Amino acid sequence: MSPTTHGTSAARPGRTPTPAGPAEARTLIRDGDAGPTTGRAPGYTQANLVSVPRDWAYDVLLFCQRNPKPCPVLDVTDPGETSTVLAPGADLRTDLPAYRVWEHGELVEEPADVTGRWRKDLVTFLIGCSFTFEWALADAGVPLRHIEQGRNVAMYVTDRRCRPAGAMHGPMVVSMRPVPQESVATAVRVTGRMPAVHGAPVHTGDPSLLGIADIDEPDFGDRTAMLPGDVPVFWACGVTPQAAVMASRPPFAITHAPGRMFITDVRDEEYLVA
Amino acid sequence: MSPTTHGTSAARPGRTPTPAGPAEARTLIRDGDAGPTTGRAPGYTQANLVSVPRDWAYDVLLFCQRNPKPCPVLDVTDPGETSTVLAPGADLRTDLPAYRVWEHGELVEEPADVTGRWRKDLVTFLIGCSFTFEWALADAGVPLRHIEQGRNVAMYVTDRRCRPAGAMHGPMVVSMRPVPQESVATAVRVTGRMPAVHGAPVHTGDPSLLGIADIDEPDFGDRTAMLPGDVPVFWACGVTPQAAVMASRPPFAITHAPGRMFITDVRDEEYLVA
Repeated sequence: MSPTTHGTSAARPGRTPTPAGPAEARTLIRDGDAGPTTGRAPGYTQANLVSVPRDWAYDVLLFCQRNPKPCPVLDVTDPGETSTVLAPGADLRTDLPAYRVWEHGELVEEPADVTGRWRKDLVTFLIGCSFTFEWALADAGVPLRHIEQGRNVAMYVTDRRCRPAGAMHGPMVVSMRPVPQESVATAVRVTGRMPAVHGAPVHTGDPSLLGIADIDEPDFGDRTAMLPGDVPVFWACGVTPQAAVMASRPPFAITHAPGRMFITDVRDEEYLVA
Repeated sequence: MSPTTHGTSAARPGRTPTPAGPAEARTLIRDGDAGPTTGRAPGYTQANLVSVPRDWAYDVLLFCQRNPKPCPVLDVTDPGETSTVLAPGADLRTDLPAYRVWEHGELVEEPADVTGRWRKDLVTFLIGCSFTFEWALADAGVPLRHIEQGRNVAMYVTDRRCRPAGAMHGPMVVSMRPVPQESVATAVRVTGRMPAVHGAPVHTGDPSLLGIADIDEPDFGDRTAMLPGDVPVFWACGVTPQAAVMASRPPFAITHAPGRMFITDVRDEEYLVA
């Protein structure tokens, strides 16, 4: 399978999210549904996946510790493990809609299953995802434009550098959601209570302050149309470690494809603070 | 210097805490003040210290990630580093009141300065400390009995096992503060907003539910007298990684002595959520 640039092939406008439990959602995915996971398994935490060889694991873990807003670690497996405490029945090699396989920082493959690429020395990091707080936003009356428009969320590489750790370095990546200006404060307050899934926005308003030249050209995911009165609101994004993998060039790595997350059995409330 | 069992020699009842800024507090300590740091540098975050050789650092970092309530990591240094982003002017080898030096899990020395024991491969972990939230408790009107009584906080080894990571394993250690029953809910609410410094209590009430046989016999620190109507309230404690070092027996390690913390330049509010 050839890699797609923005990973959006199965995320066309018009797709209706199907609410389901996490196990049911993973079964659909394992059976071939390769679309983005935004809007699926309401109320359950979704996670970014990064698998690296054991001798890179310390640098990745330290990179996450030093950059907790974009890289909040929810679980780290032992080497070679194919399951996680976050969803004991799930298989990390098959239960994501699409993966990316990296060699020396180059994307070499974007398969729906990485069983054939798995290695006994792979340590898997599961990192909090902003899809988790979308239910909290919706409950608070904040509209989710990308879901209304049937699209993957828009993600951008910023000019902010993460604090490096050993061989791992790279820029912060953000997700953007258009928020009606009268709801911006609510969006900040609601997500600020969920630091394990990126927490409060890193920026609201002018994209150029993050070094984003054109809001209509996301680096990952789909363009989301802004409605009149909408303000772009930016959250630190779990694609950040993937960008660091690209920049830091470990000999081998597997990640999720942007927007194609791992759906866990953990309720969002578990990550709520205060 | 011979190790002391509970590390309380300079923490006699009657000692009056001297409020001061963090740099001033560290200077007093560097110049020989070996007492506990509870009550010092009001409003500034205090940290537990654990230094291990680089080849143990991954297991320690993963142990912390898997046990975030007792082991909230505030910073991890590069190997051999003697300073931290948490207090750029401070020296990690001299600026704590007392250290413990461990060989194969055995306490071999309790010096006031570890410059002579430092190694180029030591990675230092600074871990959140409940002393940080004591100011928030005091501000909310919750009395702090151990400070009123001029004592180090009481700490206990529990029968709860931490989730192991590689070679690192051990029990959860807790600190205990007597709280008037009418203030227990306030104490839970206030500290729940500070997950980086242990967050909400792990237990309130009967100590036997944590496997603590005798509340008057703490494993570290000093006995704190309960007043009529007080309830014992237990928070996960940053001595937990020290207990894991004892149990897991790395060839070499340095920790702070219980109650003798590293005082950082970071304001407590930085660790406040929501």
